[in-house]
Amino acid sequence: MNQSLGKASIRPEKPVYILNSASVVGTKEGQGPLGLLFDKVGEDDMFGCATWEEAESTLQKDAVGIALEKSGLSQDEVTFIFAGDLLGQSIATSFGISSYQIPLLGVYGACSTCGESLTLGVMSIAGGFARRVACVTSSHFASAEKEFRFPLEYGNQRPLSATWTVTGSGAFVLGDEDAMTAVKTGGKGPRAKITGMTVGKIVDYGLKDSMNMGACMAPAAASTLEQHFIDFGSQPDDYDKIITGDLGMVGQRVLIDLLMERGYDISSQHMDCGIEIYDSDSQDTHAGGSGCGCSAVTLSAYILKQLEEHSWKKVLFMPTGALLSKTSFNEGKSVPGIAHGVVIESI
Amino acid sequence: MNQSLGKASIRPEKPVYILNSASVVGTKEGQGPLGLLFDKVGEDDMFGCATWEEAESTLQKDAVGIALEKSGLSQDEVTFIFAGDLLGQSIATSFGISSYQIPLLGVYGACSTCGESLTLGVMSIAGGFARRVACVTSSHFASAEKEFRFPLEYGNQRPLSATWTVTGSGAFVLGDEDAMTAVKTGGKGPRAKITGMTVGKIVDYGLKDSMNMGACMAPAAASTLEQHFIDFGSQPDDYDKIITGDLGMVGQRVLIDLLMERGYDISSQHMDCGIEIYDSDSQDTHAGGSGCGCSAVTLSAYILKQLEEHSWKKVLFMPTGALLSKTSFNEGKSVPGIAHGVVIESI
Repeated sequence: MNQSLGKASIRPEKPVYILNSASVVGTKEGQGPLGLLFDKVGEDDMFGCATWEEAESTLQKDAVGIALEKSGLSQDEVTFIFAGDLLGQSIATSFGISSYQIPLLGVYGACSTCGESLTLGVMSIAGGFARRVACVTSSHFASAEKEFRFPLEYGNQRPLSATWTVTGSGAFVLGDEDAMTAVKTGGKGPRAKITGMTVGKIVDYGLKDSMNMGACMAPAAASTLEQHFIDFGSQPDDYDKIITGDLGMVGQRVLIDLLMERGYDISSQHMDCGIEIYDSDSQDTHAGGSGCGCSAVTLSAYILKQLEEHSWKKVLFMPTGALLSKTSFNEGKSVPGIAHGVVIESI
Repeated sequence: MNQSLGKASIRPEKPVYILNSASVVGTKEGQGPLGLLFDKVGEDDMFGCATWEEAESTLQKDAVGIALEKSGLSQDEVTFIFAGDLLGQSIATSFGISSYQIPLLGVYGACSTCGESLTLGVMSIAGGFARRVACVTSSHFASAEKEFRFPLEYGNQRPLSATWTVTGSGAFVLGDEDAMTAVKTGGKGPRAKITGMTVGKIVDYGLKDSMNMGACMAPAAASTLEQHFIDFGSQPDDYDKIITGDLGMVGQRVLIDLLMERGYDISSQHMDCGIEIYDSDSQDTHAGGSGCGCSAVTLSAYILKQLEEHSWKKVLFMPTGALLSKTSFNEGKSVPGIAHGVVIESI
């Protein structure tokens, strides 16, 4: 039986498999510590397009295409696509994946969207509504700066607490046990299995600094993580890694402190995709990377690789989102956060 | 067994019940033909707030509060909330429902979001992941004009093909059969049951006129409707009403023509929430109403009432969305559409 666990968690009766995945990134990400692991690195960040938004759409289109190809599947063999991005009205998604003609369920959770799309994808498969689904999210440094902050031409200074939005898109093809067997016979994948999820709620500590998103999101990450431990009756030691999306260096310290106050020491398990993706000293990325694409490409290229190689057996993947817009920021509102946790295990 | 049907449809093994619902609207909607049916009509469209965006958040908060109250449930008895709106980064939702502290799955499908939230809500319950969930969507005339078109102070002229964004929010509490029995014992609800869904794909005929959204969305409505008939092996006559969200008068004509070309005559069943909600002659709303709130408040206040009174036995409720943003419009992109269909039956 599929289960609702505690206040905010769910567990599928049978695991849902990540059949395969893909990561497409920009030049800066390609030059970073994970650079060699990505499926595709753009020659420049326009990806042959006329606008930043079109470039981001191309990232999604390419990521889905490569993930399908690596899974040995055509678009007709995928029932639904769960997709989202950071731009107003999710236009990177709308113009990115329309050519696939796969029924679309659009999702929005700021930079937590990758976790949300995987959660809903698992629900649809474990619930018996689909055999295979795709999940894709993206961000682009230039389209995000334009959407949330200042025109790039303005050349504004960035404080050390600021993060650098990742130019990248990660796509995942999920499938049930039968789909896994079929793939296995064909000699490809699956890469890992998803065995549980904790859905986050909005947490707002009243912080208003959009140049310190890590601090804004850390309380939400702490809330989801504590709820996860309670709902699953688990402890930090049960995971090889507890991986947040884009807290960066400031947010990481806040998260570890908040969890310590609640009786959980995650300092030896915690990893943040935003800290891993750049070398902040040489790449001038300050507190780290961020964006929907940050956790998605790191999951596809790096985390799943560790699980495939059995370097790690079980991780909690927990992308974090800051629920602001240019309008809410300019109207003086706070920056609430949200985080969704997904338990991913090696096969 | 829950089922995937055909290319884009799903059918839960057991129906999922709309335990109760609520509609909160602005003054213009209160003066319209459905005015007396809404749960709450604001005294003015600011709803006691300092900004249009906060006013829209208040609509969502009130709608969820009233829907929970009418269902006889506390927020702790709802596992997830599926919520969205039209504003960039869904800020009406983020600042509207955060006080409820219910785990949130944010959704975006432009004005089709109400259909998407119900679809995902049904999946989560029928899949065994939740007993009860809430679904809420909203729009606000002034926040939408600011987000998509011109400042209200500019006083721009609106062509006759334009629609008027509904100020309103509709919230729905869904539950499984056991939840229904519990509610029935308490003497409240349920209002209707959901027995099937068809998930839409993006359809883009290349139209670029953001002042004629009905024509932009009609091809998506036609696509989802045709797919629905194929997947369920049904015909227009199987439904008392086939109800689109906000095609308005121009879009309605396009939809009926497109379906006729494909061999389906829906002219006697078709109804559009955008046409019903205003008296366009006296209220100067041109082609009709639109927005996430349009279909949601019409479903809650009018459609469910007809089903409760057994005036209608079975309807296909199909909100329609136009996937544009100010940025995509200004960059000369087309306005793609999407539509999600939900089969709702009387009990």
